[in-house]
Amino acid sequence: MIDLIHDCDPGNDDAVAILAALGHENLNLLAVTTGAGHLAADRTARNAAITVAAAFPASVPVSAGSPGPLLRERLIARLLDMESGLDPERPDLAAVPLDAMHSVDRLAHELRRHPGLTVVATGPLTNLALLIRRYPDEAARIGRIVTLSGAWGLGTKTASAEWNILCDPEAAAIVYGAGIPLTMVPVDASGLVPIDEALISAVAEIKGPAAALAAELLRSLTRTFFPGVLTPSEPPLHDPCAILVAAEPGIARSVPARVEVDTAPGINYGRTVVDFAARTGKPNNCDVVVEFDVAKTHACLIEALRRLARLQEK
Amino acid sequence: MIDLIHDCDPGNDDAVAILAALGHENLNLLAVTTGAGHLAADRTARNAAITVAAAFPASVPVSAGSPGPLLRERLIARLLDMESGLDPERPDLAAVPLDAMHSVDRLAHELRRHPGLTVVATGPLTNLALLIRRYPDEAARIGRIVTLSGAWGLGTKTASAEWNILCDPEAAAIVYGAGIPLTMVPVDASGLVPIDEALISAVAEIKGPAAALAAELLRSLTRTFFPGVLTPSEPPLHDPCAILVAAEPGIARSVPARVEVDTAPGINYGRTVVDFAARTGKPNNCDVVVEFDVAKTHACLIEALRRLARLQEK
Amino acid sequence: MIDLIHDCDPGNDDAVAILAALGHENLNLLAVTTGAGHLAADRTARNAAITVAAAFPASVPVSAGSPGPLLRERLIARLLDMESGLDPERPDLAAVPLDAMHSVDRLAHELRRHPGLTVVATGPLTNLALLIRRYPDEAARIGRIVTLSGAWGLGTKTASAEWNILCDPEAAAIVYGAGIPLTMVPVDASGLVPIDEALISAVAEIKGPAAALAAELLRSLTRTFFPGVLTPSEPPLHDPCAILVAAEPGIARSVPARVEVDTAPGINYGRTVVDFAARTGKPNNCDVVVEFDVAKTHACLIEALRRLARLQEK
Amino acid sequence: MIDLIHDCDPGNDDAVAILAALGHENLNLLAVTTGAGHLAADRTARNAAITVAAAFPASVPVSAGSPGPLLRERLIARLLDMESGLDPERPDLAAVPLDAMHSVDRLAHELRRHPGLTVVATGPLTNLALLIRRYPDEAARIGRIVTLSGAWGLGTKTASAEWNILCDPEAAAIVYGAGIPLTMVPVDASGLVPIDEALISAVAEIKGPAAALAAELLRSLTRTFFPGVLTPSEPPLHDPCAILVAAEPGIARSVPARVEVDTAPGINYGRTVVDFAARTGKPNNCDVVVEFDVAKTHACLIEALRRLARLQEK
Repeated sequence: MIDLIHDCDPGNDDAVAILAALGHENLNLLAVTTGAGHLAADRTARNAAITVAAAFPASVPVSAGSPGPLLRERLIARLLDMESGLDPERPDLAAVPLDAMHSVDRLAHELRRHPGLTVVATGPLTNLALLIRRYPDEAARIGRIVTLSGAWGLGTKTASAEWNILCDPEAAAIVYGAGIPLTMVPVDASGLVPIDEALISAVAEIKGPAAALAAELLRSLTRTFFPGVLTPSEPPLHDPCAILVAAEPGIARSVPARVEVDTAPGINYGRTVVDFAARTGKPNNCDVVVEFDVAKTHACLIEALRRLARLQEK
Repeated sequence: MIDLIHDCDPGNDDAVAILAALGHENLNLLAVTTGAGHLAADRTARNAAITVAAAFPASVPVSAGSPGPLLRERLIARLLDMESGLDPERPDLAAVPLDAMHSVDRLAHELRRHPGLTVVATGPLTNLALLIRRYPDEAARIGRIVTLSGAWGLGTKTASAEWNILCDPEAAAIVYGAGIPLTMVPVDASGLVPIDEALISAVAEIKGPAAALAAELLRSLTRTFFPGVLTPSEPPLHDPCAILVAAEPGIARSVPARVEVDTAPGINYGRTVVDFAARTGKPNNCDVVVEFDVAKTHACLIEALRRLARLQEK
Repeated sequence: MIDLIHDCDPGNDDAVAILAALGHENLNLLAVTTGAGHLAADRTARNAAITVAAAFPASVPVSAGSPGPLLRERLIARLLDMESGLDPERPDLAAVPLDAMHSVDRLAHELRRHPGLTVVATGPLTNLALLIRRYPDEAARIGRIVTLSGAWGLGTKTASAEWNILCDPEAAAIVYGAGIPLTMVPVDASGLVPIDEALISAVAEIKGPAAALAAELLRSLTRTFFPGVLTPSEPPLHDPCAILVAAEPGIARSVPARVEVDTAPGINYGRTVVDFAARTGKPNNCDVVVEFDVAKTHACLIEALRRLARLQEK
Repeated sequence: MIDLIHDCDPGNDDAVAILAALGHENLNLLAVTTGAGHLAADRTARNAAITVAAAFPASVPVSAGSPGPLLRERLIARLLDMESGLDPERPDLAAVPLDAMHSVDRLAHELRRHPGLTVVATGPLTNLALLIRRYPDEAARIGRIVTLSGAWGLGTKTASAEWNILCDPEAAAIVYGAGIPLTMVPVDASGLVPIDEALISAVAEIKGPAAALAAELLRSLTRTFFPGVLTPSEPPLHDPCAILVAAEPGIARSVPARVEVDTAPGINYGRTVVDFAARTGKPNNCDVVVEFDVAKTHACLIEALRRLARLQEK
């Protein structure tokens, strides 16, 4: 069993990732921590709390964290900040009460009790950066960070930067530079894991409220997807891929690399420079997932949701 | 009385500033918080604790804080990190025990109890930046920040950057950009307040261990001073000026300005761009001290140390 | 017939490109202009002169141009500057005498006589940038620039920058920003046109000294190729692709985009930011070749070299 | 006698500088070259031609040069581009016909004939940068460049950048980095040479059309001057100071330094970093004028204009 904290900004694909984390047999989810990202911090905390409630009797503390990035002004996603992400807010869905601890303190607290735990981060890296700077001793106990962030190819928000990094490039630079074992899941790789009809159907066939929510969220993600030039042709799964590869590294191929985050002002602000060939002259600081086995990844997600459903049936 | 926290990195002039803060009749010093700067964080905390011990029976909690900057690697002052700063370490001087709280938590704690307090920062701004990001509600209760940092003219460490800013430019950018009332004491202004023989003599004549330490520290600062091109011709007082202007604003002339910190890589990394003329098109975010009345500033320091001596006599 | 100037830094693939330009039935090559790149400027001019001599009786003026970039220091290719590029210098090969005009003046001169001509640039863009700034009226007469430079994916020299751009990013920024119709052939696209055995064999079967040199150059390019992570698996053809797509646009698929060159210091210096989705909010400034039809591209090269051979037979 | 080319963008103070150059006994003015600056390039060329005409029978070729900067978009001075600079255009003043040569070619031409000549540049450095890159051999024959540009203190256009540099920072970086002996006259120094009533009166008393124009230009400069925070209290002479210090180095005190131009995007774009203390670790590349002897500078200007008047009387 892998002790896990999921730091996220739900967000529909974050929510599916939370459910996968709660269901996967290899994972012992200790906490869900949140911060601002696609949505303001109060919305992401509430969405996480709704998602966890849907997994009952499985449960885990959900805490609120950083309301904005370290240095830059907060990015506001066009439309999304108002309308998407478990959209519309669901009067039919309950939420668990929020953790009394701030997300950064919760991370420190769990690290004292569970040295070696894994943190999967599927949103901006602000909470992790604050943890590293405010609680360096506790941060040194992280066994591995798996982060869904960055790209070696085209960006997703600007032409050069991926959303999660662009939301807080300085935090990302702190986390990537912290010397903690780190697996980068770039959108180049997660973007090729599609949310296809077969996946949605398989999830929809699973019984219980968690899978029903997951199916609904997956379907909603297909409706906001528009392919572009040199982009994936099908809606990408993204965030759950990071949880799944933390649980089962064998579903993907990784390559060691040096990754640095551009924090200089200008057109590459927030870009991750992925150096597979030691061109920077600096040591590798992460493993970069370069390819998922799509079939295995889909199967892994379905099985995690099935296991969660079985927990709900009892 | 002005409630005050002094965030610093002693350092000899920081230590004189602590003594001035303990002695000045307008100031109610609540805590001394520390972090890495000229010296490593364990040295600055210990030096602050030694300084406070020398002021007995006056006293105040001394906490340890950030061991390094937010984003950049820690700057190491040539020679100074080993040898200077209450140099040599004094077996004849006791130290108060350190606060159990981290400096960032101490700041938050005091802000909850003393809304409106003033923070005088005479070192890198890391602790304050972490406070602002981890405890935004408490940070909003700061009445004023007075910071000895930055320059509109030549830098002190690089040709463009002043030491305190250069130690943590991203933290400085967070603090200057936080919207908290702020007084900048740039080294252009504090650099023209000399440590001259008259000042040292006046301090040396004051009785008691605090003034004796202050005189010793002032004298040591004259021995490491070398004038350059377009730099002050006499050793500058620097850090105490920030405490003194917080206590008595009338000793200096200030002008409102927009100040931004350059965090881009390159030759101006860490420079403070001081805009007195609204050229940036952005609103002013601080008052910049452009000139000290040297006689008044000297008198203010001497009187604070005399008052501390009277407290020690009792 | 398309009036053409080939601005280059031979270099083995530049040399093949010159031969293709001399042979292709759609192209009227007016001049070969050169500058520093993989090799110092005297070497590239001489290599171009050797190449043109091998095409006799076909001929064209060969001029020397910029010995270094506009702003940055000249990059020196490891090993290559000494040893590669028509390597070793061939005592058995003659060279045509160099043009008395500087390359920038030659470009201006031909533009006055042949308004609307195409410039294919397969080296750093220094000559073109100087033309644009020194002779703005003549530069406005360029019909189209086709440039083998930049990348939307991984760089070839640094992790983020392609060699031709990195050699002179400021010149590239001038050229991409000049408002002249521009086709970008990025190494992502040209990198997937392989120099394979079938191509080399087909070229080797062509009679005459030009094709013999071309075959020799192609073969030498296979010997210095090493595949990496996420890079082409076979040696790429690169420079000739730019000549060929200028002659026959139908061999490739292009997409309009906004491309900007990062000239800020730091880890993305020299990166081309390719924006297919109007994320920058700025108008498109070029057509980006996103895919070559490999079979057509190979056939086009072979046919151009065959035609040149027929000219040599007469 | 010092062979001299004056590269400028008149502008009223440039025009006074031209007259001083024509009149000073130590100077042999070979050409006036121009480019865009405060005004568009056609306006600056015409203003120079008007100024030279006013000096008849003294004369010199006046050429037009670069209509804009190397890399950035052209700055347009608010109001000034339309109305100032020999403002209003004077129907009563004749102009000499313009040189058939482009300014860059004129510079190269004179350098072939007069190796060792001095170039005084009182506008943006675009022409000089193009000379250095297009004609490196001729540029190597420059004996000294004296440039009125940059600041070690506050900027004049942005809070950090001086106007002439900001108009073309990349050109400035080329010129300052070219390895040619260079004297920098920063606005910190020239800004303390006032245009006061005594100076204007002394010039107004000189007979002849050149001095009359000079007096008129000086007076007009006092009408557009507004003092600010930490800026000169009287209207500064600026451009003529560069001509005068080229003619008589003894009127100023200079200090060797390393000066670099910030070409990175952001708040310090166009700033000159003046390093008097070898903090950059790079060798000094210029002499920086740190102080003018105001009385000597005034006397030098007056005497040059008197001598020009005597030439006009003959």
